[in-house]
Amino acid sequence: MTEAVAMRPTDAAALIADMGTRARAAAARLAGTPTADKARALVEAAKAIRTQGEAILAANAGDVARAQANGLSAAMIDRLTLNPARLEGMAAGLEAVAGLPDPVGETIDETRRPNGLILQRVRVPLGVIGIIYESRPNVTADAGALSLMSGNACILRGGSEASASNRAIHAALLDGVRAAGLPDDAIQLVPVTDRAAVGAMLTAQGLIDIIVPRGGKSLVARVQDEARVPVLAHLDGIVHLYIDGAADPAKALPLAVNAKMRRTGVCGATETILIDRAYAAPQPILAALIEAGCEVRGDGAIQALDARVKPASDNDWDCEYLDSIVSVAMVDGIEAAMAHIARHSSHHTDAIVTEDQAKADRFLSAVDSAIVMHNASTQFADGGEFGLGAEIGISTGRMHARGPVALEGLTTYKWLVRGSGQLRP
Amino acid sequence: MTEAVAMRPTDAAALIADMGTRARAAAARLAGTPTADKARALVEAAKAIRTQGEAILAANAGDVARAQANGLSAAMIDRLTLNPARLEGMAAGLEAVAGLPDPVGETIDETRRPNGLILQRVRVPLGVIGIIYESRPNVTADAGALSLMSGNACILRGGSEASASNRAIHAALLDGVRAAGLPDDAIQLVPVTDRAAVGAMLTAQGLIDIIVPRGGKSLVARVQDEARVPVLAHLDGIVHLYIDGAADPAKALPLAVNAKMRRTGVCGATETILIDRAYAAPQPILAALIEAGCEVRGDGAIQALDARVKPASDNDWDCEYLDSIVSVAMVDGIEAAMAHIARHSSHHTDAIVTEDQAKADRFLSAVDSAIVMHNASTQFADGGEFGLGAEIGISTGRMHARGPVALEGLTTYKWLVRGSGQLRP
Repeated sequence: MTEAVAMRPTDAAALIADMGTRARAAAARLAGTPTADKARALVEAAKAIRTQGEAILAANAGDVARAQANGLSAAMIDRLTLNPARLEGMAAGLEAVAGLPDPVGETIDETRRPNGLILQRVRVPLGVIGIIYESRPNVTADAGALSLMSGNACILRGGSEASASNRAIHAALLDGVRAAGLPDDAIQLVPVTDRAAVGAMLTAQGLIDIIVPRGGKSLVARVQDEARVPVLAHLDGIVHLYIDGAADPAKALPLAVNAKMRRTGVCGATETILIDRAYAAPQPILAALIEAGCEVRGDGAIQALDARVKPASDNDWDCEYLDSIVSVAMVDGIEAAMAHIARHSSHHTDAIVTEDQAKADRFLSAVDSAIVMHNASTQFADGGEFGLGAEIGISTGRMHARGPVALEGLTTYKWLVRGSGQLRP
Repeated sequence: MTEAVAMRPTDAAALIADMGTRARAAAARLAGTPTADKARALVEAAKAIRTQGEAILAANAGDVARAQANGLSAAMIDRLTLNPARLEGMAAGLEAVAGLPDPVGETIDETRRPNGLILQRVRVPLGVIGIIYESRPNVTADAGALSLMSGNACILRGGSEASASNRAIHAALLDGVRAAGLPDDAIQLVPVTDRAAVGAMLTAQGLIDIIVPRGGKSLVARVQDEARVPVLAHLDGIVHLYIDGAADPAKALPLAVNAKMRRTGVCGATETILIDRAYAAPQPILAALIEAGCEVRGDGAIQALDARVKPASDNDWDCEYLDSIVSVAMVDGIEAAMAHIARHSSHHTDAIVTEDQAKADRFLSAVDSAIVMHNASTQFADGGEFGLGAEIGISTGRMHARGPVALEGLTTYKWLVRGSGQLRP
């Protein structure tokens, strides 16, 4: 790899222009590649991940040692670290994507016009996907697999701390791509990890069709701020769980604890709980959260229920803690809850707990978020849990795709018009 | 209107921020407005257009007189001019949109997960649409109607040369909106026509969800260049008609003439004809075009067929003439034709004429344009002709919507998740 790096243009814009041009050519081939060939590439890549497991783990050990020497945080080192189980998870993930239904070629709709023209909308790949990520090396495999299976070429730019791991995983992916007779440029890894390459990707209009940032808030914010290429992402997951007066306490309490505490670092974790003043048993929910190790920050009414509740500041209602902290407010019914959500939600996921179907329907209809739930844990906000098989990310944007995005979200469509010589009058 | 203008903030960014905030509030109401109420607003607006016809024509006459005094081109004055027939067309257009199927609330798909969760993707409006247009006052009615019927609020910014006409049409639309009990801010007209307001719209992220530019190439180019808000548009319509060796001359000749000459100023007009060297009767096509008043610019092989053919320069293959001019090249079969198209097409509409179904399928599958046609005139590239009832525009972008965009293209979706207390393990 080092040789290849040295031979490529060092100027970031020229590098990305070159990679983008090659990706565009590969995309033209991938668009017409049969499902079986794409699947075969991923199955062969999974095999390569397994047979090259030692080399990948050794490369990763080098990354981890450098990260430790550089004083990276324990959380970052955990995200960076591979082990045999994680490696097997990566290989199994490639096989799972290989087994997903291929959206490319699917006919979305078909009409016959009075003049005899037959119109079809048929799904086609988006083209070239740019993925910008941080320390998790498994994104190399996941994002590469989803891009390839949806017929797209991709340009992967991982974090510098994972560069040896990413190169090793990319080599295994390339083995799969080659085994299936697909072009090398189907999955490219940016060989340099300086920030200039990111900037060049974000402005590569015409060469990169969509950018997917995978990582922390500062990365996503920078990408959304600088990108001239469309971005598919979510910045925040300020997720609300509203416990209605008509909620069943036997459901509400475990839902609140699961939605907040199952995993606190995921974007679908609840950050604010809104409790209807009419709800019968608010205190046990607070107690259960506190006893599960959660810091509860409440408004005055919530503080009055339990001495262990800390006061919430104005800032708490706009906070994505991604930690064992929750803000809790007492509200006067569903409309007040929805007004709070409209003001503070990041339009990712919001949920209602109630046994009143009319209120559930009102909430599902009126709350304007990518995912709106009734009597379910917000932690289900995930492409795998939604049956999509995988996800490239969750979108809180309104254009193109919303919520969990997997293969279909990486496609667009074209109109096919079949005639028999029709002239327009 | 003049008073209202004077009371509003004069600073363009503050003006658009204010209008955007009010549009956002209106959009929240429109998202839940029943189809019948939206349709009623448009039917009442059509009535108002008719009853206020004299006032609208008088306002328009003022605009036309100013345009003439300012020496605007005859083509621009034609686009600007209203008459009773065009006014009736506008009213009938509003009624037609009122009769279209409402995409909002439509369930795109529904799945039941093994854990009992029921997932639905349901169409919802995009939110706030910004429309930036030039001298055609009918866009005020068309774009306002499509936005409203799809449950979106809109902010209309028409050209200064049409400002009196636009205010008069907007007043009639507002009468309809009020008659149906919908908020005034559902359809707003920017009360100033300086360029700063356009700049403010293009950067109103969070307030305007999508910008649709309607007008000439310089407007669209500026919008695409400056916008930070997503843009739905096409810049060029460099449309190709490929006449294959297996084409039926009885179809190919009239298709070529219709595709080029029916109306030369529309984006679906053919600009380049590619003729397979194996095609039997190329000269009659050239002759028919020339006799229909078209200037034919050909490569060497085409020039050799007819002395009236002028030489094409390199630049001709990338030209959208929008005029009675066509560039014609001789190619060696379908693959050469597709290579030419891949290099020069603007990915708007490209067509093949052939009786060979395998070649037709190859072309439909491999040509990467928003619309790909077989044995049909490229002039059919139009939302109305596609049965969409109307169109807000044609998109050559790959994200969100491609080709003619009408009501469905102005929607997004949200995920509804219905549970019975499911916790994520």
